[in-house]
Amino acid sequence: MLERIRIVLIGTSHPGNIGGTARAMHNMGLTDLALVAPRCEVLTADSVSRASGADHLVHGARVVETLEAAVADCTLVVGASARSRTLPWPMISPRQLGERLPAELAAPKARIALVFGREDSGLSNAELQRCHAHVHIPANPEFSSLNLATAVQVLAYECRLAWLDQQQDDDALPPMGMTETAPPASHADLERYFEHLERTLITIGFHDPATPRQLMARLRRLMMRARPDSMEVNILRGILSATEKQAEAARRREG
Amino acid sequence: MLERIRIVLIGTSHPGNIGGTARAMHNMGLTDLALVAPRCEVLTADSVSRASGADHLVHGARVVETLEAAVADCTLVVGASARSRTLPWPMISPRQLGERLPAELAAPKARIALVFGREDSGLSNAELQRCHAHVHIPANPEFSSLNLATAVQVLAYECRLAWLDQQQDDDALPPMGMTETAPPASHADLERYFEHLERTLITIGFHDPATPRQLMARLRRLMMRARPDSMEVNILRGILSATEKQAEAARRREG
Repeated sequence: MLERIRIVLIGTSHPGNIGGTARAMHNMGLTDLALVAPRCEVLTADSVSRASGADHLVHGARVVETLEAAVADCTLVVGASARSRTLPWPMISPRQLGERLPAELAAPKARIALVFGREDSGLSNAELQRCHAHVHIPANPEFSSLNLATAVQVLAYECRLAWLDQQQDDDALPPMGMTETAPPASHADLERYFEHLERTLITIGFHDPATPRQLMARLRRLMMRARPDSMEVNILRGILSATEKQAEAARRREG
Repeated sequence: MLERIRIVLIGTSHPGNIGGTARAMHNMGLTDLALVAPRCEVLTADSVSRASGADHLVHGARVVETLEAAVADCTLVVGASARSRTLPWPMISPRQLGERLPAELAAPKARIALVFGREDSGLSNAELQRCHAHVHIPANPEFSSLNLATAVQVLAYECRLAWLDQQQDDDALPPMGMTETAPPASHADLERYFEHLERTLITIGFHDPATPRQLMARLRRLMMRARPDSMEVNILRGILSATEKQAEAARRREG
């Protein structure tokens, strides 16, 4: 289970925090680290020293340019967020995240990304809107910004507790049958659907990117809540294709 | 409750860890820091920088010579220990520590110390034996030594959760979840939406009621999972209306 939980750091500026993250991950048994467009050197004396023996995770970290590339294969993407945003998103606590892990990772291909933002400014709204849910570490409202590696530690700790719980349960109970009817949709499937959706809404004149009025964010939030599986995404895209055909036929009439 | 939980660091050698501890404490709402025989300068550029705005806790830390002096007024002393010792001691998990806090702090004069050892060698046996219990952060057995400030963070986090739980019990706060921006959709709203959806899917040739293939059931299940609110249902119906208009225009062309 733990090997299918990826820690994703976006735009990190201090190598020490990358090393500290590696140490926290290895302490808790996590192994999969991705760095999105780091704003610092990754392998430095500071990152190796803070990793304190877990520098193999820094060496092995995948460095990519976009969040997209870091989470494309993930079936659940959770963003760490301290702030409440203009458009509220499903919000879970670190403990609730841990409690949901066994079910979320039941399907063999399921994979989870925990996404952490920049030291100074966190995650952008666009990044937050690519997440199924946001996780908030309950902190002193007057001093709520945790050190990056420390925030990773808290979530990794909850992941480990959930995993230890499951080990205990597995010893006692036979595993339950799979309830999934279709494999979960990956992040990339979902993003292709959202692109298709936006294109179609523009085509039928429902959406004007010049005056977006948060339409796409609202539709994203709605569909992310539903957690469509891959068959459902196929159905939704089939509907979009059929809609586009109608719009095309209508345009030919006008043309 | 939180103001009666003291963090005690023994023989710390890195000022950065004192600063990081201050930050973790302030993040979680703890205020009482005691340093026993630190092996480094306490107030340095590094400790202030790692405190990241919580350096008042470093300034205010009580520096004493012995563990004795640091915990004399405490009614419960818990030592953080990674290793199992020759002489077994009552052992609790961080979560159990949190669960015990309300009872332990019920008496107004009760006061708890959480004691952390040296970066390199932890707590001595003599120090461990001055504790009522030992708390062990469950970690990767092959890499079990957490960074000092990070270990403080995990225990402080459990303290805060316990405190928040207690507040909730006191105030009956609503559970954390999505903040509603619009009133929930009524059953009738939803049913009107599903009727509209089916009509539209027939119009654009995506759905044939004669061979339904469970299409509507699948779409229902998906949307029910998302629990759309009334504004979201309005958006979805707006999309359906725009789609119908296209289909009508296309039909007029053919007609």
